[in-house]
Amino acid sequence: MAKTSLNVALIGQGFMGRAHSNAWGQVGKFFDLPLMPVLHTACGRDAGKLSAFQKRWHWQNIATDFKQVIRNPEIDLIDVVVPNNMHKAIVLEALKAGKPVACEKPLSNSFDDARAMVQAARKAKQRTFVWYNYRRCPAVTLAHQLVREGRIGQVRHVRASYLQDWAMDASIPLAWRFDAKTAGTGSQGDLNAHVVDTVRFVTGEEVSEICGGIVETFVKQRKLMTGTASGGLSQGLKSSGKAGKVTVDDAVMFLARMSGGAVASFEATRMAAGNQNRNGFEINGTKGAVRFNFERMNELEYFDATEERKVQGWRTIIVTHGGDHPYAAAWWPDAHVIGYEHGFTNMAYDIVLALAGKKPTAPLPDFADAFVTQRVLQAMLICAKERRWVKVAQVK
Amino acid sequence: MAKTSLNVALIGQGFMGRAHSNAWGQVGKFFDLPLMPVLHTACGRDAGKLSAFQKRWHWQNIATDFKQVIRNPEIDLIDVVVPNNMHKAIVLEALKAGKPVACEKPLSNSFDDARAMVQAARKAKQRTFVWYNYRRCPAVTLAHQLVREGRIGQVRHVRASYLQDWAMDASIPLAWRFDAKTAGTGSQGDLNAHVVDTVRFVTGEEVSEICGGIVETFVKQRKLMTGTASGGLSQGLKSSGKAGKVTVDDAVMFLARMSGGAVASFEATRMAAGNQNRNGFEINGTKGAVRFNFERMNELEYFDATEERKVQGWRTIIVTHGGDHPYAAAWWPDAHVIGYEHGFTNMAYDIVLALAGKKPTAPLPDFADAFVTQRVLQAMLICAKERRWVKVAQVK
Amino acid sequence: MAKTSLNVALIGQGFMGRAHSNAWGQVGKFFDLPLMPVLHTACGRDAGKLSAFQKRWHWQNIATDFKQVIRNPEIDLIDVVVPNNMHKAIVLEALKAGKPVACEKPLSNSFDDARAMVQAARKAKQRTFVWYNYRRCPAVTLAHQLVREGRIGQVRHVRASYLQDWAMDASIPLAWRFDAKTAGTGSQGDLNAHVVDTVRFVTGEEVSEICGGIVETFVKQRKLMTGTASGGLSQGLKSSGKAGKVTVDDAVMFLARMSGGAVASFEATRMAAGNQNRNGFEINGTKGAVRFNFERMNELEYFDATEERKVQGWRTIIVTHGGDHPYAAAWWPDAHVIGYEHGFTNMAYDIVLALAGKKPTAPLPDFADAFVTQRVLQAMLICAKERRWVKVAQVK
Amino acid sequence: MAKTSLNVALIGQGFMGRAHSNAWGQVGKFFDLPLMPVLHTACGRDAGKLSAFQKRWHWQNIATDFKQVIRNPEIDLIDVVVPNNMHKAIVLEALKAGKPVACEKPLSNSFDDARAMVQAARKAKQRTFVWYNYRRCPAVTLAHQLVREGRIGQVRHVRASYLQDWAMDASIPLAWRFDAKTAGTGSQGDLNAHVVDTVRFVTGEEVSEICGGIVETFVKQRKLMTGTASGGLSQGLKSSGKAGKVTVDDAVMFLARMSGGAVASFEATRMAAGNQNRNGFEINGTKGAVRFNFERMNELEYFDATEERKVQGWRTIIVTHGGDHPYAAAWWPDAHVIGYEHGFTNMAYDIVLALAGKKPTAPLPDFADAFVTQRVLQAMLICAKERRWVKVAQVK
Repeated sequence: MAKTSLNVALIGQGFMGRAHSNAWGQVGKFFDLPLMPVLHTACGRDAGKLSAFQKRWHWQNIATDFKQVIRNPEIDLIDVVVPNNMHKAIVLEALKAGKPVACEKPLSNSFDDARAMVQAARKAKQRTFVWYNYRRCPAVTLAHQLVREGRIGQVRHVRASYLQDWAMDASIPLAWRFDAKTAGTGSQGDLNAHVVDTVRFVTGEEVSEICGGIVETFVKQRKLMTGTASGGLSQGLKSSGKAGKVTVDDAVMFLARMSGGAVASFEATRMAAGNQNRNGFEINGTKGAVRFNFERMNELEYFDATEERKVQGWRTIIVTHGGDHPYAAAWWPDAHVIGYEHGFTNMAYDIVLALAGKKPTAPLPDFADAFVTQRVLQAMLICAKERRWVKVAQVK
Repeated sequence: MAKTSLNVALIGQGFMGRAHSNAWGQVGKFFDLPLMPVLHTACGRDAGKLSAFQKRWHWQNIATDFKQVIRNPEIDLIDVVVPNNMHKAIVLEALKAGKPVACEKPLSNSFDDARAMVQAARKAKQRTFVWYNYRRCPAVTLAHQLVREGRIGQVRHVRASYLQDWAMDASIPLAWRFDAKTAGTGSQGDLNAHVVDTVRFVTGEEVSEICGGIVETFVKQRKLMTGTASGGLSQGLKSSGKAGKVTVDDAVMFLARMSGGAVASFEATRMAAGNQNRNGFEINGTKGAVRFNFERMNELEYFDATEERKVQGWRTIIVTHGGDHPYAAAWWPDAHVIGYEHGFTNMAYDIVLALAGKKPTAPLPDFADAFVTQRVLQAMLICAKERRWVKVAQVK
Repeated sequence: MAKTSLNVALIGQGFMGRAHSNAWGQVGKFFDLPLMPVLHTACGRDAGKLSAFQKRWHWQNIATDFKQVIRNPEIDLIDVVVPNNMHKAIVLEALKAGKPVACEKPLSNSFDDARAMVQAARKAKQRTFVWYNYRRCPAVTLAHQLVREGRIGQVRHVRASYLQDWAMDASIPLAWRFDAKTAGTGSQGDLNAHVVDTVRFVTGEEVSEICGGIVETFVKQRKLMTGTASGGLSQGLKSSGKAGKVTVDDAVMFLARMSGGAVASFEATRMAAGNQNRNGFEINGTKGAVRFNFERMNELEYFDATEERKVQGWRTIIVTHGGDHPYAAAWWPDAHVIGYEHGFTNMAYDIVLALAGKKPTAPLPDFADAFVTQRVLQAMLICAKERRWVKVAQVK
Repeated sequence: MAKTSLNVALIGQGFMGRAHSNAWGQVGKFFDLPLMPVLHTACGRDAGKLSAFQKRWHWQNIATDFKQVIRNPEIDLIDVVVPNNMHKAIVLEALKAGKPVACEKPLSNSFDDARAMVQAARKAKQRTFVWYNYRRCPAVTLAHQLVREGRIGQVRHVRASYLQDWAMDASIPLAWRFDAKTAGTGSQGDLNAHVVDTVRFVTGEEVSEICGGIVETFVKQRKLMTGTASGGLSQGLKSSGKAGKVTVDDAVMFLARMSGGAVASFEATRMAAGNQNRNGFEINGTKGAVRFNFERMNELEYFDATEERKVQGWRTIIVTHGGDHPYAAAWWPDAHVIGYEHGFTNMAYDIVLALAGKKPTAPLPDFADAFVTQRVLQAMLICAKERRWVKVAQVK
């Protein structure tokens, strides 16, 4: 008898643990699935918290030893949501055990770790997935489809940025997100990784050369933190009197040339007053253009330069029509809009499809694909540091 | 030992059954609750469909006899989502059994039925709730708070409308939504009821007099339907060759005076090309104004006429900041926006609070409150039919 | 030898005198004209002010006796911009003298006067024009064209309003605009007249029945004014200690049925906080919709319900493309936008075309046409006062 | 007796000749001026065209020899609107003759010429002006004021771009705008010069270092042109069969650090489909942010990060309120918006103020100031060509 369920083990229980638990719980309620995900085991180091986490999200089991969990023959998929300096150890263990892995983005903030993970995946010949969830925001998926269908012609211009402002407040203490040892980077891994992935996904092109770059930390010191964070990006953090050094970037920017001849600018920052979660892009081609801003995530703006001039204009497509728009049939009627968490649920749906041997709604990034993004980030850092142009292909 | 769970019975399994099941399932995952809702029993007439519904939404039990369900002593709350011509029978049974009731809006399309329900509730002295879910859309709740705090001063102008366009397609067959026998009304009960409730909620004022009204059916005949609908408003419906008469309205409009002296216009329609779910309002007072459109449900526009003229302007508030914006602390970080279904989950949260003896985030409409809305709709129909001004208080 | 110039006499020198002087001065600089307007004579009662007015706007002559001006054989066109309670006397004199007349809107606030003016025009067989300048706002003209071309199909819904907020300030004194003796009405003649004209122009349909209406004065008393106003709507006015009664409306609203079967709402107000000059409409038909707001006057929003569902959406057309958009060729390159005053200049262009026997860009309202608008306003007042439906055709 | 008029000579009669003629003609009608500009002499090489130009714009005299015009003792101001490769010769002559000069931007596309012009101005000790007209767009002027008042705190982020799309059409022939010999550059001088000037004006900071740059020509060949252009950017141009090489850029981009510590990106292009005249910026500081897009030139978006979090949001200021907004008192009532040409008229007003010894509304760029912009452009070109970071101060 064919297997009809998919036993998921979640390694990690932070902010992303919440988003993933929700996705695995919701996906079967809204989508018709070839395999039904089961919230089998949640694994974390803090046993006290873990019990509350289990109860809240309806995980069947909990465990504190990730190696045991990975070796459990009942588990079909290892979902990794720990801080990204810990990705490698877990992923390598899972691949060694012959299990498919879904890993949060970015693969790692260590380029060496990322490379090692890709090599392990290749060797293990296992399915891997990286949670670049914005690809599953229906408006972004639609942009990908429109570009692929040739509707905007050949791409000439890319402007992509992910702007937040939560770190503006200089009184926010030195939480792990400001510490290079745990977070690796600041806006680079957190936000810029998304921007690069999204541009690659939507344009179908690669970033070929970095033609300038800036890495900046505006608030160079913050008060040391007391206690631990509890959800959110910055809320509820308390600080002591002493100050420590911020060792990650607040903002990064770079210019690039794309493989198809387009010119591009990228930016990521946590310091752009007025922008709370402005993950957006504008891409102009020889026949039209697409424009997106996550703060209005249900809308894609599209300009068709080939239609009658008299009525040309940017049109705002509400990407919620079942049958015509990606993922929409699973949710609600027209313009009964969806939210942030739905991107994860849509991605869970596509992972299930892929594991069941079916075609996902749009390409899913595996480790090799995510490593290409990682290489762009690495090239950008070299460019900014060494003040020279860098060919991405030469970064190995 | 104090009870810590709340056993819910859902009567009905259609479109709203889906939204409510989701809400009862999600509320405990995102909110900290004094009572934990349990999806105890789903009740429906079609046993075949019911089993699939149970499985999908994780209801513990199913049943086809609503009276038995209501009498089950384990059940703490009766949630009614059947078509609204069936509300009365179930609600009266529940009240008779001494159970709190949460009923979908509008109370009824029969004014007499609605009155009977209010009287029964009063007699039973039970908690009742009516699912005017848009009150729980955080931007609408914030508008209510701002008006209550006096930020826009005394209200002078109300412009409120709920515009959809799905019924424009004349090939959509004669589904139950076009039939007065089952649906009672068209845009009136479906959309206009929301508009009236929202205006009452946000302004804190009552509609006192109807000063003109129009009821219109643009597509007077539709092909008869074969088979039954499956979700959505119009998708997947098939039609036969014969035509039947549309017996409900496509659009309604009315003018009114409010109890505080404001003048107001209301409109609801399924035929306004380009508007998929534009449930919106603009309210102007002596000190400022608020503006909302559900298609951008995470945003409230606010104009403060008392601030320095040099920088006056409509501001767009993204209503997602935990601590400052209603319901936001339960969800995601700033501008990680939420969607349609979250209004129901927010309402489930407030119902739980109310049943646990705590104060909900904002006033919950009970039957008596919902009946005031119903009286406005009734007055509006009299005005349109008899072509005369109607004082709402005189409609009994 | 054919006459190549058009000698204009302007009667009046207030706010509109400024807009018209500018239009007559600018039109020959931007448009290629069959007749060149000459600013021949400016006529006003205040000789002191008149001299400064002449100098500023380059009028060749000035005069204080309008009858003499009208009789001057050199004058080819009488342009009337006096307060509208004085329109009739001048217009009748001009028509008697056999001169074409361009008169500011509305024809009059006295329905009897308006009728008399139409009859005089008919008898005189002279060209008449009424300055409903918003017809010449290119986005409005384009809306007219799109509807006429059948692009939105049969009209079903009209929502039209002209919202201002300058009169909110209760400290503004009792200027002529608040006095029925001089202004006749408040928002009715000033704003609502525009709304009705625009809807008739864009839809090509007539308002056939009034189905409800409201006339409201929110600020019932104002301090008496000292001195006289100088430009603007409310700026620079000074008040004394005593209060007087406001005898005009602050706001008017009505519902209507259109000749083609559409249902419509109209509103005009000077009290809608946050709206400075929001002269706008949305018109939905069986095939699409158009939407406009003067505060973004260079943009027309258009929704095409017949195109591929996947990319349907409201598009924002910047109406500045020479060759494709009305009047645009005369002005600047794409999106080098134009302003309020250009509507008057565009209208001056069309008046010149009409007087030279050529076809204007879009229909120009003559007295008979403007009287139809006046009749709607009259019907609306009767409806609001007598609280009954009124057939417009029955108002004579 | 004090001189009360200002005799202007215009050298050039192209697109900009039109905008300037209009400005000099309009400024005295809308503003109260200490000196009244007189359109004294228009000077051009094509005598045939010149006569029509004179007639249309009401120039009192015409001439074909610019040296004679400059030497005419009646002339008070030389206004230069010829193609910018001809700026130097005229400007030097004017300065030698001891006349104030207003020169179109950029000073020159030759860095050497620009330097020579600055030196000549310094030596002549004459007033000079450069027509960076967007400084006089009221929303931009307001942004300058808000930043100067400290409302956005210390600047951290600058994103500035000028996007057009008219050159996308590959069938547009090889007009002078595509030829380095006459135009010097493409988007660089035409658009990027504006962007750099605007950022300097609004932030009050200088571009200190270029950290990356791209110069790109997408359409490398175009058909040779037959005949001459007549107004507009691309309309009415006809092409022959043969192709020639495009020798200017279509697009330029660069990254920079600002003197106050901000990081910045700049972009200018004629190839960004969907953007007709999107001259815009967003500037984020420690206390707030401002955002602008010329396509909605009457609006400035402003975010105040210091106000109550509950109602924080981007506000849209319609910059038309007399008394509170720059230049607004001269024009029309609130939200009776202005257009492209008004920026020139506002600048003419400020030039007149400056020549009369009064303070202009906001700083006017003289040659020395415009040369700073030119140096940034030069540094950017070096960076893009030599693929290295460039300190702007080191470009001499």
